[in-house]
Amino acid sequence: MSDVIERLFVVLKDRRDADPSRSYVASLHHRGLNRILEKIGEEAIETVIAAKDAAISKDPTEVIKETADLWFHTLVMLDHLDISPSSIFAELELRFGTSGIAEKQSRNS
Amino acid sequence: MSDVIERLFVVLKDRRDADPSRSYVASLHHRGLNRILEKIGEEAIETVIAAKDAAISKDPTEVIKETADLWFHTLVMLDHLDISPSSIFAELELRFGTSGIAEKQSRNS
Amino acid sequence: MSDVIERLFVVLKDRRDADPSRSYVASLHHRGLNRILEKIGEEAIETVIAAKDAAISKDPTEVIKETADLWFHTLVMLDHLDISPSSIFAELELRFGTSGIAEKQSRNS
Amino acid sequence: MSDVIERLFVVLKDRRDADPSRSYVASLHHRGLNRILEKIGEEAIETVIAAKDAAISKDPTEVIKETADLWFHTLVMLDHLDISPSSIFAELELRFGTSGIAEKQSRNS
Repeated sequence: MSDVIERLFVVLKDRRDADPSRSYVASLHHRGLNRILEKIGEEAIETVIAAKDAAISKDPTEVIKETADLWFHTLVMLDHLDISPSSIFAELELRFGTSGIAEKQSRNS
Repeated sequence: MSDVIERLFVVLKDRRDADPSRSYVASLHHRGLNRILEKIGEEAIETVIAAKDAAISKDPTEVIKETADLWFHTLVMLDHLDISPSSIFAELELRFGTSGIAEKQSRNS
Repeated sequence: MSDVIERLFVVLKDRRDADPSRSYVASLHHRGLNRILEKIGEEAIETVIAAKDAAISKDPTEVIKETADLWFHTLVMLDHLDISPSSIFAELELRFGTSGIAEKQSRNS
Repeated sequence: MSDVIERLFVVLKDRRDADPSRSYVASLHHRGLNRILEKIGEEAIETVIAAKDAAISKDPTEVIKETADLWFHTLVMLDHLDISPSSIFAELELRFGTSGIAEKQSRNS
């Protein structure tokens, strides 16, 4: 299942040039980068609100949905900017080979 | 490389109970959910700003770093709430079997 | 003109109990705190995107609209939580009597 | 007290060219628009988190502080872009002369 992001990205690329009236992904690209970035901001705030609620309700349903939405729109952004998710994987690899605070320092350097 | 998220999550879980003065991940858990969510908000806005700059500069470096930071802190949040990233993968699977606008409708239902 | 926020707040309080199908403000209260907070997140990100665009275009129109939207929804939130904008004015007063870095320290204390 | 925003803006403009090592406001301008916008994003998310906590605790203290921080950094952004807060006041005036849904429509047009 771990390859879902790569498989999803293939689908996202395929839909990019679809009819914007029939494909949500195509409609995002058609509306442009600002609309895609607005969605990332919206999904981030909805993730935060869902997490606050889940900390009390102990029901993870909304957090799972909103986090999926956040990752989904992040992938649309990457495609819009012609960046592969493998670049993000490589960046994450770079960091977690190191341990503890070292990892934070690599993030800040 | 696609399993990097699962491997990273194993490392994150391992560090969760480390010494907060030596592990950034442990320090986030120690400071609590609000601090983790603040970081998600910060990294989301930094991703948006980096994407605006990249659209002009055509240099993807900062977008890659900020997106990795955003995903990283999302994973810390999931662990803090005892949610597995496989739940997010499953949610994404549910959506992209469907096509075009149908996918959007499944997101909204 | 400086009293516009206080006059707007009076209007907002008046509309809070209006018919949600006829008043946007009433519809926000009816949908609840999470919806109001989602709007604050959305307007904040739209302000940031508009500011990035204005830095290049030198056209302030969108920044003005988005900042007004952000302040507007912040006022709706304050009313929803039964907090007066005068509390925010008092907090701002506390800070800018002091000078320079002292002001930052008062923010962090 | 309602003129606090205008008085604060005068102070902010005065500090803009101060020594960045001694004035927080000057240090924000010195670091540039991206840093100012990051702060707006941070303060917006902290306002949202504080509001979620206040809805349960009934303690408005943190919401007041975070909302003041959000307005404060918004004013720094306006000054950085050479926009007067009176433009925001005028935009708000335009909207709340109208009633109910009409107000929303004016926001969207």
